[in-house]
Amino acid sequence: MATVEELKLRVRELENELIKCKQKQCAMEDAHSSELHRPKIDKMSSEVVDSNPYSRLMALKRMGIVDDYEKIRTFTVAVVGVGGVGSVTAEMLTRCGIGKLLLFDYDKVELANMNRLFFQPHQAGLSKVEAAEHTLRNINPDVSFETHNYNITTMANFTHFMERISHGGLEEGTPVDLVLSCVDNFEARMAINTACNELGQIWMESGVSENAVSGHIQLIIPGETACFACAPPLVVAANIDEKTLKREGVCAASLPTTMGVVAGILVQNVLKYLLKFGTVSYYLGYNAMQDFFPTMAMKANPQCNDSFCRRQQEEYKKKEAERPKVEVVEEEEEAVVHEDNEWGIELVSEVTDAELQAASGTVPDLPEGITVAYTIPAECEPSGETVQETEQSLEDLMAQMRKL
Amino acid sequence: MATVEELKLRVRELENELIKCKQKQCAMEDAHSSELHRPKIDKMSSEVVDSNPYSRLMALKRMGIVDDYEKIRTFTVAVVGVGGVGSVTAEMLTRCGIGKLLLFDYDKVELANMNRLFFQPHQAGLSKVEAAEHTLRNINPDVSFETHNYNITTMANFTHFMERISHGGLEEGTPVDLVLSCVDNFEARMAINTACNELGQIWMESGVSENAVSGHIQLIIPGETACFACAPPLVVAANIDEKTLKREGVCAASLPTTMGVVAGILVQNVLKYLLKFGTVSYYLGYNAMQDFFPTMAMKANPQCNDSFCRRQQEEYKKKEAERPKVEVVEEEEEAVVHEDNEWGIELVSEVTDAELQAASGTVPDLPEGITVAYTIPAECEPSGETVQETEQSLEDLMAQMRKL
Repeated sequence: MATVEELKLRVRELENELIKCKQKQCAMEDAHSSELHRPKIDKMSSEVVDSNPYSRLMALKRMGIVDDYEKIRTFTVAVVGVGGVGSVTAEMLTRCGIGKLLLFDYDKVELANMNRLFFQPHQAGLSKVEAAEHTLRNINPDVSFETHNYNITTMANFTHFMERISHGGLEEGTPVDLVLSCVDNFEARMAINTACNELGQIWMESGVSENAVSGHIQLIIPGETACFACAPPLVVAANIDEKTLKREGVCAASLPTTMGVVAGILVQNVLKYLLKFGTVSYYLGYNAMQDFFPTMAMKANPQCNDSFCRRQQEEYKKKEAERPKVEVVEEEEEAVVHEDNEWGIELVSEVTDAELQAASGTVPDLPEGITVAYTIPAECEPSGETVQETEQSLEDLMAQMRKL
Repeated sequence: MATVEELKLRVRELENELIKCKQKQCAMEDAHSSELHRPKIDKMSSEVVDSNPYSRLMALKRMGIVDDYEKIRTFTVAVVGVGGVGSVTAEMLTRCGIGKLLLFDYDKVELANMNRLFFQPHQAGLSKVEAAEHTLRNINPDVSFETHNYNITTMANFTHFMERISHGGLEEGTPVDLVLSCVDNFEARMAINTACNELGQIWMESGVSENAVSGHIQLIIPGETACFACAPPLVVAANIDEKTLKREGVCAASLPTTMGVVAGILVQNVLKYLLKFGTVSYYLGYNAMQDFFPTMAMKANPQCNDSFCRRQQEEYKKKEAERPKVEVVEEEEEAVVHEDNEWGIELVSEVTDAELQAASGTVPDLPEGITVAYTIPAECEPSGETVQETEQSLEDLMAQMRKL
């Protein structure tokens, strides 16, 4: 039987141990909360001190590149698809101090995604939008986030997606400034195209080929430039879900390099468009095998299958007709979008035919349902079977797509 | 005075509380260790399952791009400078499963670095190499890391740097396969150039302009292509330390987009060089204002100031002379490096003079000590004062540099 003295000693021991345990817990919590946020800032500062996260961006004004960098805080961008390209796109915009980001994706982080930038192994199993929001908030608490963990191609979600694009701006009720397509399949691209045509929403499309060594970005102004239905790119990811393909043991290749470059040229185009500097590209391709970067511009197709695209074309024509014939030559406003506006109705490539020829080549032997987006140089891998597909005309391809 | 019963009750309470505290502590530790490593793998698998971090890379073989992707594990790359370009470069190589990385930097992470990819706010104050190693190990435990937190330009460190480049390969005692220069100043570039010329070490140089809207990568094969001293690029970061410039309230602009693109094209060139696919670029520029990507190749300069460069040129000439005159046309080995080898002694640009002209422009008004690496389009910001500098010949610039 314990004496009172013994019990008192035990109480003291336990109290001390408990204090130590709680102290350790506090230290662990502190260590964890050191990962938490700095306070939001009121105003972007140009001050050159190590503690200013915006000094190197505000310097763009001093360098004569951007007139008013701080305007970045007034813009809202929607990123659809938070995978290899979309996640890096969102991170770049976050680090640039964009006002608000809307993120749409319905996938989970997997270890199989670790060959691309952004996600980390400990996030495996989390939804991509949830994991991305956590990381991005931590990087820059000044940005507002709105995330949607759903597939935009189902009927109900598509309606909600349209609603958020048209009302989810920084000030609730206003539309977003730009939609970025960073998805990996045809169906989702078509959904974004349909929504943006109906809303007259300017957007940018991006893509990376199944063989991981090429990609592109494209600016789409409904009614003005070709939409995704006017002249679908040579990506025919078919109507098979990526999951189905995976189950059949097929998987596209991907590289952090190609996806990083595509995200980089995409966000660069976004910055140029929003902050009005440099020349905004209508289309910029990236062929990694040959370090070839084709550019071109495409007019909207009057026979486009999408009725909203045709309606936007009518409205654009009307607006153009109403414009005064003689314009001030150097009009500051919207100069970025309207300069160099002499598009042909066909592909107007800024590269020679010989160069395009050199960039084309044979197509690897792929299972049904996958076709490469971009051909690879001829010396790479001879494979006769599907070569004929690259020799089809754009019209043939469009006819095929309509049948899908 | 407490009774025995009261004391016993207190002991039980304290014991329960202590158990709860320790349980919580365990849970916190578990949560933290979930960020810790998966075990190392023996062999890269091609299996298409969500848990395989290499499935999308091994798919490069099936897609006909790379013959033997797994060879990546046998290579060692040294990254000098772990800033905006170097950190993303190291991350890309880590995610690609490179065998070993050597990282060199002497800077600390600052909040002012948060406008570029990779580092996170909670790492502010840590040395860049330490913070990078922690993040990278966590992303891919299969990669070996060796970090050096010092400035390679001091005498003692330079000797150690040379020693590690020539002995720090995957198998200790062997040289690294490639050195990547991701530094932000002239002095460090010259140190890397000197070391690689003396060792005959192949390296790649990268750079981003002070105005954040252009950059380049370059492959340097000592004795064969122009070294940094043969024809210094038009970057004249002068001999003023970045810290000095900062103290004077000056700071270069930077963008995550431009740095991401430069890191992407750099690591793409590394992969093409090491894994022998596609065309390795000798020089690839990036002008973000106009989405213009000039390429060129430069022969070594027989009058180069660096005696080791001249010695490497002699050895290269001897080797070339000893080669059998008639070669097998499609020699597999080293085809990547030696194809398209008709360099002129002058800049051999693959773009027309008109295009180069169009890409040039005025120079913003910069303080003493900073000159832009690349000119920006003329419509951007008129500023007369330093325009003359762009009109100097390469010879003038080289003469100026020698005086420094």
